[in-house]
Amino acid sequence: MSKKIKSAIVGTGFIGPAHLEALRRIPNIEVVALCEVNIELAREKAELLGIPHAYTFEDMLQNPEIDVVHICTPNFLHYSQSKAALLAGKHVICEKPLATKIEEAEELVAIAKEKGLVNAVHFNLRYYPMVRQMKNMRENGELGEVYSIMGSYLQDWLFLNTDYNWRLEPDKSGDSRAIADIGSHLLDLTEYVTGLKVTEVMADFSTVHKTRLKPLKAIETYSGKMLQESDYEEVPINTEDHATVMLRFDNGNKGSVTVSQVNAGRKNRLNIEIAGSKSNFEWCSERPNELWIGKRETANQHLMKDPSLFTREAAGLISFPGGHIEGFPDTSKQMFKEVYASVREGKQPENPTFPTFEDGLRELVICERIIESHRKQAWVKI
Amino acid sequence: MSKKIKSAIVGTGFIGPAHLEALRRIPNIEVVALCEVNIELAREKAELLGIPHAYTFEDMLQNPEIDVVHICTPNFLHYSQSKAALLAGKHVICEKPLATKIEEAEELVAIAKEKGLVNAVHFNLRYYPMVRQMKNMRENGELGEVYSIMGSYLQDWLFLNTDYNWRLEPDKSGDSRAIADIGSHLLDLTEYVTGLKVTEVMADFSTVHKTRLKPLKAIETYSGKMLQESDYEEVPINTEDHATVMLRFDNGNKGSVTVSQVNAGRKNRLNIEIAGSKSNFEWCSERPNELWIGKRETANQHLMKDPSLFTREAAGLISFPGGHIEGFPDTSKQMFKEVYASVREGKQPENPTFPTFEDGLRELVICERIIESHRKQAWVKI
Amino acid sequence: MSKKIKSAIVGTGFIGPAHLEALRRIPNIEVVALCEVNIELAREKAELLGIPHAYTFEDMLQNPEIDVVHICTPNFLHYSQSKAALLAGKHVICEKPLATKIEEAEELVAIAKEKGLVNAVHFNLRYYPMVRQMKNMRENGELGEVYSIMGSYLQDWLFLNTDYNWRLEPDKSGDSRAIADIGSHLLDLTEYVTGLKVTEVMADFSTVHKTRLKPLKAIETYSGKMLQESDYEEVPINTEDHATVMLRFDNGNKGSVTVSQVNAGRKNRLNIEIAGSKSNFEWCSERPNELWIGKRETANQHLMKDPSLFTREAAGLISFPGGHIEGFPDTSKQMFKEVYASVREGKQPENPTFPTFEDGLRELVICERIIESHRKQAWVKI
Amino acid sequence: MSKKIKSAIVGTGFIGPAHLEALRRIPNIEVVALCEVNIELAREKAELLGIPHAYTFEDMLQNPEIDVVHICTPNFLHYSQSKAALLAGKHVICEKPLATKIEEAEELVAIAKEKGLVNAVHFNLRYYPMVRQMKNMRENGELGEVYSIMGSYLQDWLFLNTDYNWRLEPDKSGDSRAIADIGSHLLDLTEYVTGLKVTEVMADFSTVHKTRLKPLKAIETYSGKMLQESDYEEVPINTEDHATVMLRFDNGNKGSVTVSQVNAGRKNRLNIEIAGSKSNFEWCSERPNELWIGKRETANQHLMKDPSLFTREAAGLISFPGGHIEGFPDTSKQMFKEVYASVREGKQPENPTFPTFEDGLRELVICERIIESHRKQAWVKI
Repeated sequence: MSKKIKSAIVGTGFIGPAHLEALRRIPNIEVVALCEVNIELAREKAELLGIPHAYTFEDMLQNPEIDVVHICTPNFLHYSQSKAALLAGKHVICEKPLATKIEEAEELVAIAKEKGLVNAVHFNLRYYPMVRQMKNMRENGELGEVYSIMGSYLQDWLFLNTDYNWRLEPDKSGDSRAIADIGSHLLDLTEYVTGLKVTEVMADFSTVHKTRLKPLKAIETYSGKMLQESDYEEVPINTEDHATVMLRFDNGNKGSVTVSQVNAGRKNRLNIEIAGSKSNFEWCSERPNELWIGKRETANQHLMKDPSLFTREAAGLISFPGGHIEGFPDTSKQMFKEVYASVREGKQPENPTFPTFEDGLRELVICERIIESHRKQAWVKI
Repeated sequence: MSKKIKSAIVGTGFIGPAHLEALRRIPNIEVVALCEVNIELAREKAELLGIPHAYTFEDMLQNPEIDVVHICTPNFLHYSQSKAALLAGKHVICEKPLATKIEEAEELVAIAKEKGLVNAVHFNLRYYPMVRQMKNMRENGELGEVYSIMGSYLQDWLFLNTDYNWRLEPDKSGDSRAIADIGSHLLDLTEYVTGLKVTEVMADFSTVHKTRLKPLKAIETYSGKMLQESDYEEVPINTEDHATVMLRFDNGNKGSVTVSQVNAGRKNRLNIEIAGSKSNFEWCSERPNELWIGKRETANQHLMKDPSLFTREAAGLISFPGGHIEGFPDTSKQMFKEVYASVREGKQPENPTFPTFEDGLRELVICERIIESHRKQAWVKI
Repeated sequence: MSKKIKSAIVGTGFIGPAHLEALRRIPNIEVVALCEVNIELAREKAELLGIPHAYTFEDMLQNPEIDVVHICTPNFLHYSQSKAALLAGKHVICEKPLATKIEEAEELVAIAKEKGLVNAVHFNLRYYPMVRQMKNMRENGELGEVYSIMGSYLQDWLFLNTDYNWRLEPDKSGDSRAIADIGSHLLDLTEYVTGLKVTEVMADFSTVHKTRLKPLKAIETYSGKMLQESDYEEVPINTEDHATVMLRFDNGNKGSVTVSQVNAGRKNRLNIEIAGSKSNFEWCSERPNELWIGKRETANQHLMKDPSLFTREAAGLISFPGGHIEGFPDTSKQMFKEVYASVREGKQPENPTFPTFEDGLRELVICERIIESHRKQAWVKI
Repeated sequence: MSKKIKSAIVGTGFIGPAHLEALRRIPNIEVVALCEVNIELAREKAELLGIPHAYTFEDMLQNPEIDVVHICTPNFLHYSQSKAALLAGKHVICEKPLATKIEEAEELVAIAKEKGLVNAVHFNLRYYPMVRQMKNMRENGELGEVYSIMGSYLQDWLFLNTDYNWRLEPDKSGDSRAIADIGSHLLDLTEYVTGLKVTEVMADFSTVHKTRLKPLKAIETYSGKMLQESDYEEVPINTEDHATVMLRFDNGNKGSVTVSQVNAGRKNRLNIEIAGSKSNFEWCSERPNELWIGKRETANQHLMKDPSLFTREAAGLISFPGGHIEGFPDTSKQMFKEVYASVREGKQPENPTFPTFEDGLRELVICERIIESHRKQAWVKI
């Protein structure tokens, strides 16, 4: 039997178990270790999730059998843990954002390069098969020159002023919320599909709820319906619920993105229209198996995810035949398949097909320029 | 029989005959006169269209039987003809834009007010029944406080660099193209539905085709397929193919609009998402009988045009039962029904339900501020 | 000026005024006369609708100036009035159904043929431009051999057991309701688009509301909300709310249609999927400007109504550019344009492009065979 | 750590690996064994898929550590293998169809009952969260009395006459193809969601390709493009490409289903409209996270998969928040989670939430009656 690659998951919030489940779908990878803030919690979660070994983060790094570390902790730990893992000789797959400061991200890029270790950031939206198909069609000339881009990423999980979460607190989550959380996915996808670089940004942020009601007790111990008015504290909100960013690209053309976490009925909807000189792509993450292709001189097209209709490369990200809908959980599986192929080779490839620490750094830079633009109320170069 | 109201149409390009056809659908209005640049053309068109009398514009004004004049000529004539018609005591329905300069529009507003004559600008998109329904639902509190607005108006009729039209020439069409032509409809509709005023704009224009190929001979004498390369002249283009405008509203919240005339496959697509504190509206002019209503705490809704489900006022703009699709031609009919009810009263109402010369002026002001913002690369107050 | 064609409308229920409005949109047609059951009502309606002359039906026939008669009365009058109009030398446009008995329809076909007069039945759904486009694409071989057909026509206006209308009474409306009212449109459209003939039918009817509550007083004097329980009488219902019909075609292939008047939320929705050996068409009357075209070996297509993308013939049924939605009212206009071109020629053409009395007869025959099949619970040949 | 449940997969065609992948996503289940027709193939596949032990079917049954057996072999083996596994004391999850004859399925139901072992048939479509939500809404009275049902299941993988597969051969696949393969899923889902039983059927089958071209050499050794005409043999086809079945239900109401494997562009599309007295459901497997809910007296609804909007039970089948699309692969995971909860209890529950051998038997009976109806050209009772 092929040697199994051995992995550790660090963190068991929402996304850690998602990494675990995705990894288990791929043959010959074994998640052998789970890390949590203390060994008791680690053991409890390991048993629940069926993982053989429980560790603290530091102890895990000592285990020479572990090949790959998945950093799934809160944002402020990404830098230090990724650094430690690299220095311990582990391949690293880090959740986004890669770090909270540009310099930290730059340092991680440098260390990873020096060590030659596989490094990836979990921009999983790239792994919808249709996203790769759009990229390939652009590479094949089927989009033509990009004329304009119009993107949006809309949610409603912070719609009410009683919706509260640590992401609303800048000291834990940073100076930007909607742009950093979801705008980063949209901007990464934009550059990835088009091959263009954003060169200038002009942003305007909007905080619809100037204050929110924060539960006085830990939210886990409450169910929404039982909260009384006296259980809340009104706190000021300083990060954006909504933002529009105008974009300029290195081919001279333009576009914009809008993000919002307060659009009722939009559960998690990334929509992008990429207008080119040959055709026009519209893709929506809530119907990810479909692509609308606009044409001027013939009927428009409506492409379904189907290995027989895709490029060979994009078909490689499809596990089921046409008409069998694949979704969000499948993106991580497909991404990890590509990353672990490099892990099996033992080193970062020269031209990785997956999002790397450099891509993570790129998003930090764009994000910081967007915040700067909003503060200056002016265009800012990237 | 009720006295028939007698009308004249000035101009027989695309939109003049559309006014004519819409008017004829309404009982007890008679289009008795047609005006063209010379009497020969007027006579020819009058026969073709089945209109009894042909005039030059000036002669038509002398006819005391004519109650209403529809100005359907090229933009640069709107001001002078509207003015002359008002001074001759006629009610006026003018195509957009009302004028080419703000001062001219202001003068028309003043004259119309002084004369007490019915005055309207053909912002017909307001007359999709669903647009009135959205407005009514907002008035009834079903939208709540408006949190954000995201609009777009996309076309592809100028997609190719061989697409050529007088609208591409600033001396004939003004300093803005996409914003003035289609952005004005979108901005009018935004303020109309939300009841908000745009207070500040920040714009960025993009000219995708820096030059276009202009036919050396009149386009009417050519069919596209027969043109040779030598039949074209390359001319520089100075107006925008695409623009994004960030918006601030008088309730403190924000939004944006994007317009483009070079998005392949988008034939004529206005799409708007108006996010409020109670619900979220998405409406698209290519499926005008449908409204998506986003909700956070219940299922989203999908409202079909149906008199039994609409407000009494919006149901008044519907001529056919639910499921019987009404479209673009019906908007002008419904608008003229409302305008002619005032004509029958003999004067402009105090609170007109239809778009007036003041609305035409408003769009000119917003448009000019948008152009100014693009030139200054800065936010401009309105 | 071209001589105006003069027409009379007989009947002023829902559809008479719709004929009137459609006719007025076409240059050089003049609706000069209106007929109602008595001269008082005729005069009242003529004034309301702005029609110069009011008549009883018999008197109208005496007027030699009238060229065309539109029969828009209740079904049981169609035969006798069409016959009288033909015998008076008038061209006739009759509402569907052409008659209540096959023999009557056969007689009308014979008289019209003998007289050479223009005759048409108002199967207006054929005049959605996309329907003509589908027909033309089939004629051009773009559909290929028809493999199967699946159609449905769903409404909800009889959804509640308190919904009541004369169409529920067989002595006024015939032995079939859903099939005769809306199934006939769907079957006409099926044969029209595909060029196939239905050769055998197997039907099953379903009466969901075995009884309904009939208002004891005339429904016009009531608004729904004011009715008390005592204002209703429970009456048995003998006609179908819902039906499925299996079909066999003259090319050996098969299909089915489903009709229902009790499907909540379906306001007036005809949907048809025509699967061929080259492609697959899906068209829905609630989005009539769009056509989905299925493909096996390339992306599917999504065609928008657009004169530049249509056959020359289908483009002839379009009055507005791509993206400008045309709907139900436009179908009658386009149909009458074609019919009146023949009226101007003075006789029925050899190969009419519009639906004729023969088409009206055809639908009566199919309908009767469907009823027979349901009664026999067996396949019946046509 | 919780004791891991140990499972064996029998068969490694398309669906065996899908079972494997789904099982691996669930904590504390271990797929320890793989069976194939000979031990060499079993070893090769086990290594490829990362499964520790390879067996022939008979040897696997001897391993007392194995708790659950998944039967993923060709249809004709389902009966004998399920029977052997039950007799060896294993819990059994069998692919559909449960058997090829009704008597065999009855025997399996009896053995499983006697043994008390967990038994399930892989009707995975029930495990789209929206399907459970529809069922729960019906149970809660939100659908009302079912008035009618209209379903279809369309594919295009056998569209061309050069598409060939063992399923086209009745001796390997049975006397019905489209109905047995995909109609069975649709009928199972219909009864499951509505709670009704089909009581009578009337069917008509259509074989569009009367002959097909069968490759003379094994299809695996060929790529489609390299086949020459001489590599094919023309063979007659006796099973249906397309079928319509009219249905009667035990509440007295009616419906129909259409299945086709030759509708171009329909990759794998189950669509069902269930019209009730309170609302109307339309659901499509190609957009499985969305439900259209028709209403007569309010706006229609459009429900997105979202745990916060679903019943507690249906929310239990959701792993990701609203707007995160889950698809086909997730259905098997959710089903196995429910089945393995019973495995952990050690016995079949009294009221299983998952599809059982009895459900497998039910589909065989319905299918046989449909074939009988087509042969007799008459209604057949079930």
